[in-house]
Amino acid sequence: MKAATLTDGPPVQHVLVFEPGEEVVSGLTDWATENQIPGSSFTGVGAFTEATLGYYDLDRQEYDEIPVDGQVEVLVLAGDITLDGQGGWKVHGHVVCGRRDGSTVGGHLLRAVVRPTLELVVTASDRHLQRRQDAASGLALIDPAA
Amino acid sequence: MKAATLTDGPPVQHVLVFEPGEEVVSGLTDWATENQIPGSSFTGVGAFTEATLGYYDLDRQEYDEIPVDGQVEVLVLAGDITLDGQGGWKVHGHVVCGRRDGSTVGGHLLRAVVRPTLELVVTASDRHLQRRQDAASGLALIDPAA
Amino acid sequence: MKAATLTDGPPVQHVLVFEPGEEVVSGLTDWATENQIPGSSFTGVGAFTEATLGYYDLDRQEYDEIPVDGQVEVLVLAGDITLDGQGGWKVHGHVVCGRRDGSTVGGHLLRAVVRPTLELVVTASDRHLQRRQDAASGLALIDPAA
Repeated sequence: MKAATLTDGPPVQHVLVFEPGEEVVSGLTDWATENQIPGSSFTGVGAFTEATLGYYDLDRQEYDEIPVDGQVEVLVLAGDITLDGQGGWKVHGHVVCGRRDGSTVGGHLLRAVVRPTLELVVTASDRHLQRRQDAASGLALIDPAA
Repeated sequence: MKAATLTDGPPVQHVLVFEPGEEVVSGLTDWATENQIPGSSFTGVGAFTEATLGYYDLDRQEYDEIPVDGQVEVLVLAGDITLDGQGGWKVHGHVVCGRRDGSTVGGHLLRAVVRPTLELVVTASDRHLQRRQDAASGLALIDPAA
Repeated sequence: MKAATLTDGPPVQHVLVFEPGEEVVSGLTDWATENQIPGSSFTGVGAFTEATLGYYDLDRQEYDEIPVDGQVEVLVLAGDITLDGQGGWKVHGHVVCGRRDGSTVGGHLLRAVVRPTLELVVTASDRHLQRRQDAASGLALIDPAA
Protein backbone atom coordinates (compact mmCIF):
# COMPACT_ATOMS: atom_id res chain seq x y z
CA MET A 1 0.00 0.00 0.00
CA LYS A 2 1.23 3.47 -0.85
CA ALA A 3 -0.04 6.37 1.22
CA ALA A 4 0.38 10.12 1.09
CA THR A 5 -0.94 13.05 3.03
CA LEU A 6 -2.86 15.30 0.69
CA THR A 7 -3.22 18.47 2.72
CA ASP A 8 -0.97 21.10 4.23
CA GLY A 9 -3.79 23.60 4.53
CA PRO A 10 -7.48 22.88 5.07
CA PRO A 11 -9.49 20.88 2.53
CA VAL A 12 -12.02 22.83 0.47
CA GLN A 13 -15.61 21.64 0.04
CA HIS A 14 -17.53 22.26 -3.17
CA VAL A 15 -21.16 21.45 -3.87
CA LEU A 16 -22.22 20.52 -7.41
CA VAL A 17 -25.88 20.27 -8.30
CA PHE A 18 -26.62 18.60 -11.64
CA GLU A 19 -29.78 19.43 -13.58
CA PRO A 20 -32.13 17.19 -15.58
CA GLY A 21 -30.53 15.88 -18.77
CA GLU A 22 -26.93 16.57 -17.73
CA GLU A 23 -24.33 13.79 -18.05
CA VAL A 24 -22.29 13.26 -14.90
CA VAL A 25 -18.82 12.03 -15.96
CA SER A 26 -18.32 14.72 -18.60
CA GLY A 27 -19.86 17.44 -16.42
CA LEU A 28 -17.69 16.62 -13.42
CA THR A 29 -14.54 16.22 -15.55
CA ASP A 30 -15.17 19.56 -17.29
CA TRP A 31 -15.72 21.30 -13.96
CA ALA A 32 -12.50 19.82 -12.51
CA THR A 33 -10.52 20.79 -15.61
CA GLU A 34 -11.85 24.35 -15.73
CA ASN A 35 -11.19 24.88 -12.03
CA GLN A 36 -7.91 22.88 -11.96
CA ILE A 37 -9.22 20.98 -8.92
CA PRO A 38 -6.50 19.25 -6.84
CA GLY A 39 -6.79 15.65 -5.60
CA SER A 40 -10.33 15.18 -4.30
CA SER A 41 -12.86 12.68 -3.10
CA PHE A 42 -16.60 12.99 -3.56
CA THR A 43 -19.88 11.45 -2.48
CA GLY A 44 -23.33 12.21 -3.79
CA VAL A 45 -26.99 11.24 -3.90
CA GLY A 46 -29.79 11.90 -6.38
CA ALA A 47 -31.31 10.06 -9.32
CA PHE A 48 -30.54 9.02 -12.92
CA THR A 49 -32.94 8.63 -15.82
CA GLU A 50 -30.45 6.34 -17.60
CA ALA A 51 -26.94 5.11 -17.03
CA THR A 52 -24.23 2.82 -18.36
CA LEU A 53 -22.15 1.15 -15.66
CA GLY A 54 -19.04 -0.97 -16.06
CA TYR A 55 -17.41 -4.11 -14.68
CA TYR A 56 -13.71 -4.31 -15.46
CA ASP A 57 -12.63 -7.52 -17.15
CA LEU A 58 -9.01 -8.02 -16.11
CA ASP A 59 -8.28 -10.50 -18.89
CA ARG A 60 -9.65 -8.40 -21.73
CA GLN A 61 -8.55 -5.17 -19.99
CA GLU A 62 -11.79 -3.40 -20.78
CA TYR A 63 -15.14 -2.69 -19.17
CA ASP A 64 -18.14 -4.91 -19.72
CA GLU A 65 -21.06 -2.53 -20.03
CA ILE A 66 -24.07 -2.80 -17.70
CA PRO A 67 -27.01 -0.81 -19.07
CA VAL A 68 -29.37 0.68 -16.48
CA ASP A 69 -32.68 1.45 -18.11
CA GLY A 70 -35.32 3.58 -16.49
CA GLN A 71 -35.34 5.92 -13.56
CA VAL A 72 -33.20 4.88 -10.55
CA GLU A 73 -32.26 6.47 -7.27
CA VAL A 74 -28.54 7.15 -6.88
CA LEU A 75 -28.01 5.49 -3.50
CA VAL A 76 -24.39 6.54 -3.43
CA LEU A 77 -21.95 7.87 -5.99
CA ALA A 78 -18.41 7.79 -4.60
CA GLY A 79 -15.00 8.35 -6.08
CA ASP A 80 -12.06 10.61 -6.66
CA ILE A 81 -10.74 13.32 -8.96
CA THR A 82 -7.09 13.19 -10.05
CA LEU A 83 -4.84 14.12 -12.93
CA ASP A 84 -4.93 11.50 -15.67
CA GLY A 85 -1.17 11.26 -16.29
CA GLN A 86 -1.58 12.82 -19.71
CA GLY A 87 -2.10 16.47 -18.87
CA GLY A 88 -5.82 16.25 -18.16
CA TRP A 89 -8.22 15.45 -15.34
CA LYS A 90 -9.75 12.06 -14.52
CA VAL A 91 -12.97 11.33 -12.61
CA HIS A 92 -13.17 7.82 -11.14
CA GLY A 93 -16.67 7.13 -9.83
CA HIS A 94 -18.51 4.02 -8.68
CA VAL A 95 -22.25 4.00 -8.06
CA VAL A 96 -25.01 1.94 -6.45
CA CYS A 97 -28.44 2.59 -7.97
CA GLY A 98 -31.82 1.61 -6.48
CA ARG A 99 -34.95 0.58 -8.37
CA ARG A 100 -38.61 1.08 -7.43
CA ASP A 101 -38.68 -2.18 -5.44
CA GLY A 102 -35.48 -1.36 -3.53
CA SER A 103 -33.33 -3.77 -5.54
CA THR A 104 -29.92 -2.45 -6.52
CA VAL A 105 -27.53 -2.40 -9.46
CA GLY A 106 -24.04 -0.97 -9.42
CA GLY A 107 -20.71 -0.59 -11.15
CA HIS A 108 -18.03 1.72 -12.39
CA LEU A 109 -19.68 4.91 -13.69
CA LEU A 110 -19.19 5.09 -17.45
CA ARG A 111 -22.05 7.48 -18.26
CA ALA A 112 -25.21 8.68 -16.51
CA VAL A 113 -27.93 11.23 -17.18
CA VAL A 114 -29.40 13.03 -14.19
CA ARG A 115 -33.10 13.47 -13.45
CA PRO A 116 -34.26 15.38 -11.44
CA THR A 117 -31.12 16.18 -9.45
CA LEU A 118 -27.70 14.97 -8.33
CA GLU A 119 -26.19 16.55 -5.22
CA LEU A 120 -22.44 16.01 -5.07
CA VAL A 121 -20.06 17.24 -2.39
CA VAL A 122 -16.42 17.33 -3.47
CA THR A 123 -13.74 17.58 -0.76
CA ALA A 124 -10.58 18.88 -2.40
CA SER A 125 -7.07 18.77 -1.00
CA ASP A 126 -4.35 21.27 -1.87
CA ARG A 127 -2.17 18.78 -3.78
CA HIS A 128 -2.64 17.25 -7.21
CA LEU A 129 -2.83 13.46 -7.44
CA GLN A 130 -1.29 11.85 -10.51
CA ARG A 131 -2.10 8.59 -12.33
CA ARG A 132 0.37 6.38 -14.22
CA GLN A 133 -0.45 3.70 -16.74
CA ASP A 134 -0.11 0.19 -15.23
CA ALA A 135 0.70 -2.50 -17.78
CA ALA A 136 -0.44 -5.41 -15.58
CA SER A 137 -4.03 -4.14 -15.27
CA GLY A 138 -4.30 -1.91 -18.31
CA LEU A 139 -5.52 0.91 -16.06
CA ALA A 140 -4.06 4.26 -15.06
CA LEU A 141 -3.59 3.86 -11.30
CA ILE A 142 -2.97 6.58 -8.72
CA ASP A 143 0.67 6.98 -7.75
CA PRO A 144 0.61 8.83 -4.41
CA ALA A 145 4.35 9.55 -4.69
CA ALA A 146 4.11 11.26 -8.09
CA MET B 1 -24.69 22.08 -13.41
CA LYS B 2 -24.42 24.70 -10.71
CA ALA B 3 -21.40 24.67 -8.44
CA ALA B 4 -20.30 26.63 -5.42
CA THR B 5 -17.38 26.55 -3.06
CA LEU B 6 -18.66 25.95 0.43
CA THR B 7 -15.65 26.82 2.55
CA ASP B 8 -13.55 29.87 3.29
CA GLY B 9 -12.20 28.40 6.48
CA PRO B 10 -11.60 24.72 7.27
CA PRO B 11 -14.47 22.21 7.30
CA VAL B 12 -15.54 20.91 10.71
CA GLN B 13 -16.02 17.20 11.38
CA HIS B 14 -18.65 15.94 13.80
CA VAL B 15 -19.26 12.37 14.90
CA LEU B 16 -22.80 11.27 15.76
CA VAL B 17 -23.40 7.91 17.40
CA PHE B 18 -27.03 6.76 17.46
CA GLU B 19 -28.29 4.39 20.14
CA PRO B 20 -30.71 1.46 19.94
CA GLY B 21 -34.29 2.58 19.24
CA GLU B 22 -33.40 6.03 17.95
CA GLU B 23 -34.87 7.21 14.62
CA VAL B 24 -32.26 8.60 12.23
CA VAL B 25 -33.98 11.28 10.10
CA SER B 26 -35.59 13.05 13.03
CA GLY B 27 -32.49 12.68 15.22
CA LEU B 28 -30.16 14.08 12.61
CA THR B 29 -32.55 16.90 11.67
CA ASP B 30 -33.01 17.87 15.32
CA TRP B 31 -29.25 17.90 15.89
CA ALA B 32 -28.67 20.08 12.79
CA THR B 33 -31.42 22.49 13.83
CA GLU B 34 -30.24 22.82 17.43
CA ASN B 35 -26.64 23.38 16.33
CA GLN B 36 -27.52 25.47 13.24
CA ILE B 37 -25.21 23.27 11.17
CA PRO B 38 -24.07 24.84 7.86
CA GLY B 39 -24.09 22.98 4.52
CA SER B 40 -22.72 19.49 5.19
CA SER B 41 -22.21 16.06 3.74
CA PHE B 42 -22.22 12.85 5.75
CA THR B 43 -21.43 9.16 5.47
CA GLY B 44 -22.10 6.47 8.02
CA VAL B 45 -22.21 2.76 8.79
CA GLY B 46 -24.06 0.69 11.38
CA ALA B 47 -27.31 -1.27 11.48
CA PHE B 48 -31.09 -0.78 11.49
CA THR B 49 -33.73 -2.90 13.17
CA GLU B 50 -36.39 -1.53 10.81
CA ALA B 51 -36.57 1.09 8.06
CA THR B 52 -38.83 2.64 5.46
CA LEU B 53 -37.04 3.62 2.27
CA GLY B 54 -38.40 5.55 -0.71
CA TYR B 55 -38.31 5.58 -4.51
CA TYR B 56 -39.42 8.88 -5.97
CA ASP B 57 -42.18 8.61 -8.56
CA LEU B 58 -41.68 11.59 -10.86
CA ASP B 59 -45.19 11.38 -12.32
CA ARG B 60 -47.04 11.23 -9.01
CA GLN B 61 -44.43 13.47 -7.35
CA GLU B 62 -44.28 11.36 -4.24
CA TYR B 63 -42.25 8.55 -2.76
CA ASP B 64 -43.24 4.91 -3.15
CA GLU B 65 -42.47 3.32 0.18
CA ILE B 66 -40.12 0.34 0.44
CA PRO B 67 -40.49 -1.38 3.83
CA VAL B 68 -37.34 -3.03 5.20
CA ASP B 69 -38.31 -5.58 7.80
CA GLY B 70 -35.85 -7.16 10.15
CA GLN B 71 -32.30 -6.39 11.14
CA VAL B 72 -30.04 -5.10 8.33
CA GLU B 73 -26.49 -3.81 8.17
CA VAL B 74 -26.24 -0.18 7.03
CA LEU B 75 -23.66 -0.65 4.27
CA VAL B 76 -23.56 3.06 3.59
CA LEU B 77 -25.74 6.01 4.53
CA ALA B 78 -24.77 9.07 2.49
CA GLY B 79 -26.28 12.49 2.01
CA ASP B 80 -26.31 16.15 2.88
CA ILE B 81 -27.68 18.65 5.39
CA THR B 82 -29.05 21.95 4.10
CA LEU B 83 -31.65 24.57 4.91
CA ASP B 84 -35.10 23.57 3.67
CA GLY B 85 -36.06 26.89 2.09
CA GLN B 86 -38.71 27.43 4.75
CA GLY B 87 -36.65 28.45 7.73
CA GLY B 88 -35.74 24.96 8.89
CA TRP B 89 -33.16 22.26 8.26
CA LYS B 90 -33.40 19.37 5.79
CA VAL B 91 -31.58 16.03 5.90
CA HIS B 92 -31.35 14.25 2.52
CA GLY B 93 -30.05 10.72 2.98
CA HIS B 94 -29.85 7.65 0.77
CA VAL B 95 -28.96 4.23 2.11
CA VAL B 96 -27.89 0.75 1.01
CA CYS B 97 -28.81 -1.97 3.52
CA GLY B 98 -27.44 -5.52 3.63
CA ARG B 99 -29.27 -8.68 4.72
CA ARG B 100 -27.89 -11.82 6.39
CA ASP B 101 -27.12 -13.41 3.01
CA GLY B 102 -25.34 -10.30 1.68
CA SER B 103 -28.22 -9.25 -0.58
CA THR B 104 -28.99 -5.55 -0.58
CA VAL B 105 -31.95 -3.16 -0.55
CA GLY B 106 -31.73 0.60 -0.86
CA GLY B 107 -33.52 3.88 -1.36
CA HIS B 108 -34.14 7.37 -0.10
CA LEU B 109 -34.14 7.32 3.70
CA LEU B 110 -37.65 8.08 4.93
CA ARG B 111 -37.37 6.58 8.41
CA ALA B 112 -35.06 4.14 10.17
CA VAL B 113 -34.59 2.81 13.68
CA VAL B 114 -31.05 2.06 14.81
CA ARG B 115 -29.89 -1.15 16.50
CA PRO B 116 -27.26 -1.54 17.91
CA THR B 117 -25.39 1.53 16.57
CA LEU B 118 -25.04 4.01 13.73
CA GLU B 119 -21.74 5.85 13.38
CA LEU B 120 -22.10 8.97 11.28
CA VAL B 121 -19.38 11.47 10.39
CA VAL B 122 -20.69 14.87 9.29
CA THR B 123 -18.29 17.20 7.45
CA ALA B 124 -19.68 20.71 7.76
CA SER B 125 -18.72 23.74 5.70
CA ASP B 126 -18.92 27.31 6.95
CA ARG B 127 -21.75 28.34 4.58
CA HIS B 128 -25.43 27.50 4.66
CA LEU B 129 -26.89 25.73 1.65
CA GLN B 130 -30.44 26.65 0.67
CA ARG B 131 -33.17 24.64 -1.10
CA ARG B 132 -35.89 26.06 -3.36
CA GLN B 133 -39.10 24.35 -4.41
CA ASP B 134 -38.89 23.07 -8.02
CA ALA B 135 -42.25 22.82 -9.77
CA ALA B 136 -41.06 20.39 -12.46
CA SER B 137 -40.04 17.68 -9.99
CA GLY B 138 -42.12 18.59 -6.98
CA LEU B 139 -38.96 18.54 -4.86
CA ALA B 140 -37.03 21.22 -2.99
CA LEU B 141 -33.67 21.22 -4.81
CA ILE B 142 -30.38 22.75 -3.65
CA ASP B 143 -29.66 26.16 -5.17
CA PRO B 144 -25.89 26.66 -4.74
CA ALA B 145 -26.27 30.35 -5.63
CA ALA B 146 -28.84 31.08 -2.91
CA MET C 1 -27.70 10.11 20.15
CA LYS C 2 -24.32 11.28 21.32
CA ALA C 3 -22.46 13.84 19.25
CA ALA C 4 -19.06 15.47 19.41
CA THR C 5 -17.13 17.92 17.32
CA LEU C 6 -13.94 16.25 16.16
CA THR C 7 -11.93 19.20 14.90
CA ASP C 8 -10.39 22.34 16.33
CA GLY C 9 -8.03 22.72 13.43
CA PRO C 10 -8.56 21.62 9.82
CA PRO C 11 -9.13 17.97 8.93
CA VAL C 12 -6.27 16.22 7.11
CA GLN C 13 -6.83 14.16 3.97
CA HIS C 14 -4.75 11.08 3.22
CA VAL C 15 -4.87 8.93 0.10
CA LEU C 16 -4.12 5.20 0.38
CA VAL C 17 -3.66 3.11 -2.74
CA PHE C 18 -3.68 -0.64 -2.20
CA GLU C 19 -1.84 -2.98 -4.56
CA PRO C 20 -2.80 -6.40 -5.93
CA GLY C 21 -2.78 -9.10 -3.24
CA GLU C 22 -2.91 -6.73 -0.26
CA GLU C 23 -5.50 -7.31 2.46
CA VAL C 24 -7.50 -4.22 3.35
CA VAL C 25 -8.46 -4.48 7.05
CA SER C 26 -4.95 -5.38 8.23
CA GLY C 27 -3.30 -2.89 5.85
CA LEU C 28 -5.50 -0.01 6.94
CA THR C 29 -5.23 -0.91 10.64
CA ASP C 30 -1.43 -1.16 10.40
CA TRP C 31 -1.22 2.21 8.64
CA ALA C 32 -3.45 3.87 11.27
CA THR C 33 -1.43 2.34 14.10
CA GLU C 34 1.96 3.31 12.67
CA ASN C 35 0.81 6.87 11.99
CA GLN C 36 -1.33 7.18 15.17
CA ILE C 37 -4.20 8.48 13.04
CA PRO C 38 -6.88 10.39 15.00
CA GLY C 39 -10.63 9.82 14.58
CA SER C 40 -11.30 9.52 10.84
CA SER C 41 -13.84 8.61 8.22
CA PHE C 42 -13.03 7.09 4.85
CA THR C 43 -14.60 6.26 1.52
CA GLY C 44 -13.05 4.34 -1.32
CA VAL C 45 -13.56 2.60 -4.66
CA GLY C 46 -11.66 -0.13 -6.49
CA ALA C 47 -11.95 -3.91 -6.79
CA PHE C 48 -11.44 -7.11 -4.79
CA THR C 49 -10.35 -10.52 -6.01
CA GLU C 50 -11.87 -12.17 -2.94
CA ALA C 51 -13.55 -11.03 0.25
CA THR C 52 -15.27 -12.22 3.41
CA LEU C 53 -18.10 -9.97 4.55
CA GLY C 54 -20.12 -10.17 7.76
CA TYR C 55 -23.68 -9.82 9.04
CA TYR C 56 -23.84 -9.31 12.78
CA ASP C 57 -26.12 -11.74 14.59
CA LEU C 58 -27.32 -9.88 17.68
CA ASP C 59 -28.45 -13.02 19.48
CA ARG C 60 -25.23 -14.97 19.02
CA GLN C 61 -23.16 -11.77 19.23
CA GLU C 62 -20.94 -12.74 16.33
CA TYR C 63 -20.70 -12.22 12.60
CA ASP C 64 -22.20 -14.63 10.11
CA GLU C 65 -19.67 -14.86 7.32
CA ILE C 66 -20.64 -14.02 3.73
CA PRO C 67 -17.99 -15.31 1.28
CA VAL C 68 -17.56 -13.27 -1.89
CA ASP C 69 -15.88 -15.43 -4.51
CA GLY C 70 -14.42 -14.04 -7.67
CA GLN C 71 -13.53 -10.58 -8.85
CA VAL C 72 -15.94 -7.79 -7.79
CA GLU C 73 -15.97 -4.03 -8.14
CA VAL C 74 -15.86 -2.17 -4.81
CA LEU C 75 -18.82 0.13 -5.36
CA VAL C 76 -18.23 1.86 -2.06
CA LEU C 77 -16.16 1.09 1.01
CA ALA C 78 -17.12 3.41 3.86
CA GLY C 79 -16.30 3.54 7.53
CA ASP C 80 -14.27 5.00 10.33
CA ILE C 81 -10.96 4.67 12.17
CA THR C 82 -10.93 4.92 15.97
CA LEU C 83 -9.07 3.66 18.99
CA ASP C 84 -10.28 0.20 20.02
CA GLY C 85 -10.54 0.85 23.76
CA GLN C 86 -7.65 -1.50 24.46
CA GLY C 87 -4.68 0.60 23.42
CA GLY C 88 -4.84 -0.15 19.70
CA TRP C 89 -6.57 1.06 16.55
CA LYS C 90 -9.84 -0.22 15.07
CA VAL C 91 -11.02 0.00 11.44
CA HIS C 92 -14.80 -0.32 11.00
CA GLY C 93 -15.66 -0.68 7.32
CA HIS C 94 -18.80 -1.66 5.41
CA VAL C 95 -18.74 -2.40 1.70
CA VAL C 96 -21.03 -2.85 -1.30
CA CYS C 97 -19.51 -5.00 -4.04
CA GLY C 98 -20.72 -5.30 -7.65
CA ARG C 99 -20.58 -8.37 -9.88
CA ARG C 100 -20.19 -8.59 -13.66
CA ASP C 101 -23.97 -8.34 -14.18
CA GLY C 102 -24.33 -5.32 -11.89
CA SER C 103 -25.84 -7.32 -9.02
CA THR C 104 -24.54 -6.43 -5.58
CA VAL C 105 -23.46 -8.07 -2.35
CA GLY C 106 -22.50 -6.27 0.81
CA GLY C 107 -21.72 -6.44 4.50
CA HIS C 108 -19.32 -5.60 7.28
CA LEU C 109 -15.77 -5.87 5.96
CA LEU C 110 -14.05 -8.80 7.67
CA ARG C 111 -11.31 -9.42 5.10
CA ALA C 112 -10.70 -8.49 1.46
CA VAL C 113 -7.87 -8.88 -1.03
CA VAL C 114 -7.38 -6.07 -3.55
CA ARG C 115 -6.97 -6.52 -7.29
CA PRO C 116 -6.01 -4.42 -9.21
CA THR C 117 -6.41 -1.35 -6.99
CA LEU C 118 -8.26 0.24 -4.09
CA GLU C 119 -8.27 4.02 -3.82
CA LEU C 120 -9.16 5.18 -0.32
CA VAL C 121 -9.39 8.76 0.93
CA VAL C 122 -9.19 9.10 4.71
CA THR C 123 -10.33 12.37 6.27
CA ALA C 124 -8.73 12.61 9.71
CA SER C 125 -9.74 14.89 12.54
CA ASP C 126 -7.33 16.16 15.20
CA ARG C 127 -8.97 14.20 18.07
CA HIS C 128 -8.85 10.53 18.90
CA LEU C 129 -12.15 8.65 19.06
CA GLN C 130 -12.45 5.90 21.65
CA ARG C 131 -14.56 2.72 21.73
CA ARG C 132 -15.96 1.02 24.84
CA GLN C 133 -17.23 -2.53 25.11
CA ASP C 134 -21.07 -2.65 25.16
CA ALA C 135 -22.49 -5.66 26.98
CA ALA C 136 -25.94 -5.45 25.35
CA SER C 137 -24.62 -5.84 21.80
CA GLY C 138 -21.31 -7.54 22.43
CA LEU C 139 -19.61 -4.85 20.32
CA ALA C 140 -17.14 -2.08 21.12
CA LEU C 141 -19.14 1.07 20.34
CA ILE C 142 -17.82 4.60 19.84
CA ASP C 143 -18.17 6.80 22.89
CA PRO C 144 -17.91 10.40 21.59
CA ALA C 145 -17.48 11.68 25.15
CA ALA C 146 -14.47 9.48 25.93
